[in-house]
Amino acid sequence: MRFDRIWLNARLATLAEGSGGLGIIENGVVAAQNGRIAFAGPQSELPASWDSGERIDCAGRWITPGLVDCHTHLVFGGDRAHEFELRLKGASYEEIARAGGGIVSTVRATRAATEDDLVTSALPRLDHLIAEGCTTVEIKSGYGLDVDTEARMLRAARRLGRERQVAVTTTFLGAHAVPPEANGDKDSYIDNVCRTMLPALAREGLVDAVDAFCESIAFTPEQTERVFKAAKELGLPVKLHADQLSNLHGAKLAADYRALSADHLEYTDEDGAAAMARAGTVAVLLPGAFYMLRETKLPPVEAFRRHGTRIALATDCNPGTSPLTSLLLTMNMGATLFRLTIEECLAGVTREAARALGRLNEIGTLEPGKWCDLAIWNIERPAELAYRIGFNPLHHRVWRGH
Amino acid sequence: MRFDRIWLNARLATLAEGSGGLGIIENGVVAAQNGRIAFAGPQSELPASWDSGERIDCAGRWITPGLVDCHTHLVFGGDRAHEFELRLKGASYEEIARAGGGIVSTVRATRAATEDDLVTSALPRLDHLIAEGCTTVEIKSGYGLDVDTEARMLRAARRLGRERQVAVTTTFLGAHAVPPEANGDKDSYIDNVCRTMLPALAREGLVDAVDAFCESIAFTPEQTERVFKAAKELGLPVKLHADQLSNLHGAKLAADYRALSADHLEYTDEDGAAAMARAGTVAVLLPGAFYMLRETKLPPVEAFRRHGTRIALATDCNPGTSPLTSLLLTMNMGATLFRLTIEECLAGVTREAARALGRLNEIGTLEPGKWCDLAIWNIERPAELAYRIGFNPLHHRVWRGH
Ligand SMILES: [Zn+2]
Ligand SMILES: [Zn+2]
Repeated sequence: MRFDRIWLNARLATLAEGSGGLGIIENGVVAAQNGRIAFAGPQSELPASWDSGERIDCAGRWITPGLVDCHTHLVFGGDRAHEFELRLKGASYEEIARAGGGIVSTVRATRAATEDDLVTSALPRLDHLIAEGCTTVEIKSGYGLDVDTEARMLRAARRLGRERQVAVTTTFLGAHAVPPEANGDKDSYIDNVCRTMLPALAREGLVDAVDAFCESIAFTPEQTERVFKAAKELGLPVKLHADQLSNLHGAKLAADYRALSADHLEYTDEDGAAAMARAGTVAVLLPGAFYMLRETKLPPVEAFRRHGTRIALATDCNPGTSPLTSLLLTMNMGATLFRLTIEECLAGVTREAARALGRLNEIGTLEPGKWCDLAIWNIERPAELAYRIGFNPLHHRVWRGH
Repeated sequence: MRFDRIWLNARLATLAEGSGGLGIIENGVVAAQNGRIAFAGPQSELPASWDSGERIDCAGRWITPGLVDCHTHLVFGGDRAHEFELRLKGASYEEIARAGGGIVSTVRATRAATEDDLVTSALPRLDHLIAEGCTTVEIKSGYGLDVDTEARMLRAARRLGRERQVAVTTTFLGAHAVPPEANGDKDSYIDNVCRTMLPALAREGLVDAVDAFCESIAFTPEQTERVFKAAKELGLPVKLHADQLSNLHGAKLAADYRALSADHLEYTDEDGAAAMARAGTVAVLLPGAFYMLRETKLPPVEAFRRHGTRIALATDCNPGTSPLTSLLLTMNMGATLFRLTIEECLAGVTREAARALGRLNEIGTLEPGKWCDLAIWNIERPAELAYRIGFNPLHHRVWRGH
């Protein structure tokens, strides 16, 4: 057998389903051919006659699947550091709004930004994710709230995937907030999202999935459903920002539409967790926002475990409530704040994150046929990836076999 | 005037006292001579005839003092990732102890480690701090609990300061825990600390300051006082792990001995805060441990402000309760969890951290005569340093003018 490249003398956490736990293989080997994994398993099971272009001795290091960030708002204009500063000085939400803060300020800055601006400002954030072994990242629109700016955001997201060795999936989040010019007329804006924006953006090939923010401060379940129906008509999968600040039964709604994922979920109830498990909808937990907002209501992790709901973790990288660009820290927060186990944390940023993007057939585990996306770590045991805080033990990242 | 090196076209946050707030200077310049700051101020105030070996254009970037981590346990054997993993699986403290976990496991691993081992394992942690602009780090002993191992830890700490371009200050923390062989006889062990260990280590020049852990699970105020008296006899300054889990009036005790700092302080009361302010004892807050232990009792920040108690922030980097190696994240936690302002956070890892080490005359602000330790940042405003989570915008670090 002929490989392009082979990583020898490694310990693998394959995360393969049915392998039990992390799918640990001591004395492991990964081999790549044409950017895909051709072999991942114990050295003893390597075909007797194999040859390869390049042999890499991992000196006992651990290899995991490349990390997947399945929920980000990585592309935006401006930042909200000044708002953060004012808040710490005791400014009220009203004062912040009067000082031009809040999501409206990000919408304004994003509308004023060119595609080049958006790419340039997002690159350092993307590079930080990449430096920790991230190989796939989801990027949402949702700070344009008009068709031109939403398109510009999604084009910028696609370009990020060309500027760096990383896979980008795009999500249209027109139903993120009501634009100022709508004067609070949410229904008319949702009409616009469903009839004009989404079809136009989908036609341009900019939309891998469709998302909405279902919350008292955003859109109702009914408005969310209209977005979901419009997506389904176009054959696009859906996701949902659900039950973050109150229980509007967003998890259940997402499951009803067989959403890829429902995200946040602090207020999700037992019924929601069960419905998600039945529908195969992944629970994407976002501990960065929980931490930043100093929330105390924990997502129903025990219910997810009981029902077999899959759990993923993501940064939710965004300028307002989670300016977080570290999946390692996300794992630590998942463990520390949500009491997820090491296995849940690591699966949450690999296999389950891939599932939440509908890409589990291509990425997320070390299995033959998938893209050869690897993270190689200077650690003695996988638990270190979640245990340490503000540390990066990445030795090397491999994307598509290189 | 002749400089060795000059940084031009920068924005400075000098943190100089009396400068008001962060001591911001637009169109600023820093000049170094013999490793010291020769000038730090507006370009317009530069002497008319100056010359320099090297001119560095900062392109409008921000310069702050090099960061100071004033409370770490950076040198230790082993790690506690496995214990973290077991805890997440629901293991009780007793089960952890039976599995060989807890501080005893770190003492065992540290005793088994050579000086080379200790240096080798600490270097990646130190390098992570350095990569974020840290130029001075305090390192405590306290996992040896016998004279040979405590000496080895402190020698390793000194060596770290030679292996890297960073200043290391050492703190003897013999009174960290009771060693297993003492069979719980705390008084006899404190005798040993005061009469044998401390004098021997001080004689070897290994002790810049003396610390103790005053807590129901560690040592009483009376035992702490004996350590302080022994330190004072040797002319050594003291510090204290105080009021972390309960109020034993450790802050007041530290102030009575004019300690450089009292650290943790979640349970400190108004009297303690006032006494610290009067004595000039710095309040070193450690949000990493607060976060990791999921504490809810906040340190009395308002009382510190009211009394004018100085506030510093540090990582408390240690394997059990704060495996944190990021001062940027420490700032974010100080802001997010303790509601410190941006100014308090940034002063907390520069000027006030220097004060907590008794080194304010040498480091901690951008002022002529001090060591030229700089952190140069790719940011638009200082608030970004605390606002972002898991991100490192350091452009360049300067230590002693290089
Ligand atoms: Zn989001
Ligand atoms: Zn400590």
